Amino acid sequence: METLNVSLGERSYPIYIGQNLIDQPDLFERHITSQQVMVVTNETIAPLYLDRVLKSLAGFDVVTVVLPDGEEFKTLNTVETVFNSLLENRFSRNSSLIALGGGVIGDLVGFAAACYQRGIVFIQVPTTLLAQVDSSVGGKTGVNHPLGKNMIGAFYQPKCVITDTCVLESLDARQLSAGLAEVIKYGLVRDAEFFIWLETNMDALTQRSPNDLAFAIERSCSNKADIVAEDEMESGVRAILNLGHTFGHAIEAGLGYGSILHGEAVAIGICQASDLSRRMGFLNNDDVHRIEMIVQNAALPTVPPKELSVSQYLEIMAVDKKNIDGRIRFILLERLGRAKLPCSVEIDRLEATLNEYGRS
Amino acid sequence: METLNVSLGERSYPIYIGQNLIDQPDLFERHITSQQVMVVTNETIAPLYLDRVLKSLAGFDVVTVVLPDGEEFKTLNTVETVFNSLLENRFSRNSSLIALGGGVIGDLVGFAAACYQRGIVFIQVPTTLLAQVDSSVGGKTGVNHPLGKNMIGAFYQPKCVITDTCVLESLDARQLSAGLAEVIKYGLVRDAEFFIWLETNMDALTQRSPNDLAFAIERSCSNKADIVAEDEMESGVRAILNLGHTFGHAIEAGLGYGSILHGEAVAIGICQASDLSRRMGFLNNDDVHRIEMIVQNAALPTVPPKELSVSQYLEIMAVDKKNIDGRIRFILLERLGRAKLPCSVEIDRLEATLNEYGRS
Repeated sequence: METLNVSLGERSYPIYIGQNLIDQPDLFERHITSQQVMVVTNETIAPLYLDRVLKSLAGFDVVTVVLPDGEEFKTLNTVETVFNSLLENRFSRNSSLIALGGGVIGDLVGFAAACYQRGIVFIQVPTTLLAQVDSSVGGKTGVNHPLGKNMIGAFYQPKCVITDTCVLESLDARQLSAGLAEVIKYGLVRDAEFFIWLETNMDALTQRSPNDLAFAIERSCSNKADIVAEDEMESGVRAILNLGHTFGHAIEAGLGYGSILHGEAVAIGICQASDLSRRMGFLNNDDVHRIEMIVQNAALPTVPPKELSVSQYLEIMAVDKKNIDGRIRFILLERLGRAKLPCSVEIDRLEATLNEYGRS
Repeated sequence: METLNVSLGERSYPIYIGQNLIDQPDLFERHITSQQVMVVTNETIAPLYLDRVLKSLAGFDVVTVVLPDGEEFKTLNTVETVFNSLLENRFSRNSSLIALGGGVIGDLVGFAAACYQRGIVFIQVPTTLLAQVDSSVGGKTGVNHPLGKNMIGAFYQPKCVITDTCVLESLDARQLSAGLAEVIKYGLVRDAEFFIWLETNMDALTQRSPNDLAFAIERSCSNKADIVAEDEMESGVRAILNLGHTFGHAIEAGLGYGSILHGEAVAIGICQASDLSRRMGFLNNDDVHRIEMIVQNAALPTVPPKELSVSQYLEIMAVDKKNIDGRIRFILLERLGRAKLPCSVEIDRLEATLNEYGRS
């Protein structure tokens, strides 16, 4: 087992990465401070891993909540379901909430933990590659609103992240690829060496080579932990982790949550952001080609479905969290392995990119 | 104008206390960082003070939301109304939310500010004595759940508190008294000198002597600021500010939110906690009598309505935030001017107090 530390003063916490960690009661017990424990998971994950987690929690009074699976359930209404169960079971402020699932479960349960009695113990057990390399680390929690993704939420750090690499064996290929979009992102925004490693080893990752996956997860989490330690609240450098996300969120919101995976939308968004970076004079054609190739090799889409018009993109992007006083801002690439902080772009260049990737 | 500072490192903020402060654009402008400003108030306060606040915000793009008045609207549903308006008006992450109202508005709008895009600028303009001396200071935000008061919320500090003592002129006598309950609390839990001052000057306060009110507000805020600086997240000493609140919350929840003012319930709760402190051997009969007298002199009730049975009290108290693993805990008084940290009590003593103050 590897242990990475996210350094945030009194909010610091470990990320445990290894095989069959969900079967180790000790990892849970270290961070739980009372008898009352609630495990929240979804209908897909429950039959696969819930029993094993419950076995590791045998010493506690455990209540289980099983939610429907899908981004379309990442809403304030679903959070209320969790609150109702916590209150009906009289959970007190020193009780613990465990998220067993992918990014949707982690974000939603983290937000519930942040708000219940103004904050209770929260433990992440991510079960998708995307959650393991990105959403389970760094304390961003929240839910979607019909008018924008992740618009309601909190910065709330878990007490630990238990990343069991064995759970990836049951992940379907599409979900695995979705996670690789965020892995590629780390290479692009701040780790050129890792990007080159990924160019060479992408096939090993899609074929689930355990050692290569473990390396990619550790390297991704290590990059993320560094950035979060530097800028917990995203007042500066952390924003670079949003590479591809302004476009990606617009694709997700425009198509309706649940019709495309977050990682797929991010993969397309990375290609769009690369194209825009080229139009701004930062990347050259060869750079953009390498990015499209690696995305394609990860079995991810490089162009969006044709449903969205340029005006729809612009309208949705107008409520992105990075905007200031209504101006749309993007994370662009200065070069492979280095991102720029959020910047506004000329509208004609943005429209050129949207036309290039949009309805013809 | 007096300026008290709440010392919380990078989350420190000033409390401005003085006359006609809502007419001073400068106080607002110091803390607002973008053009987009939303003022949330209620139907009672809007006709009285909204225009004056809007005049002070003339330089900004302001959206106003007017909510219905009352504790029964302090719900997640009402927070959603605020989110909807923020998103429909495309408020970005650097926009500002101003709460113009009493404790309900402050708690609810503060929670909305905490959660909108994971946190935006928040400014408190408290318009009741209770909000000025208690709820606007210290960052406790949140809403009620049918199964418990303030069960959903966040610790989220404002950028400043603008306490205009002139707005108390329009406050009705019952609301003024409700605020005095929290003022009395500060004397009881940590400021014996202030308690004695209050015994002497309570009539001046109920008769709205401006100088005496200003002194009581400053002294209360100063006590609160000290405690919050010491223990922002209520992991220790801050809990003493809950004197009377375990009983008080049970009275509010049991009668249905809105049927009794929070301050009135706290006043009764202070008397019940005093009685329980006596039964535990901490206070003597004379102490309890002095507490009942000062509550009475503030034109506050000392006994609860007879609707609630002992078993109802116990059931509601079972979900109090101070509880640990299901055990009910109370803030009790060691002596006048000194509270004890939360402690469990023998059930027969608790029942004796509840019987003393309950249905006969």
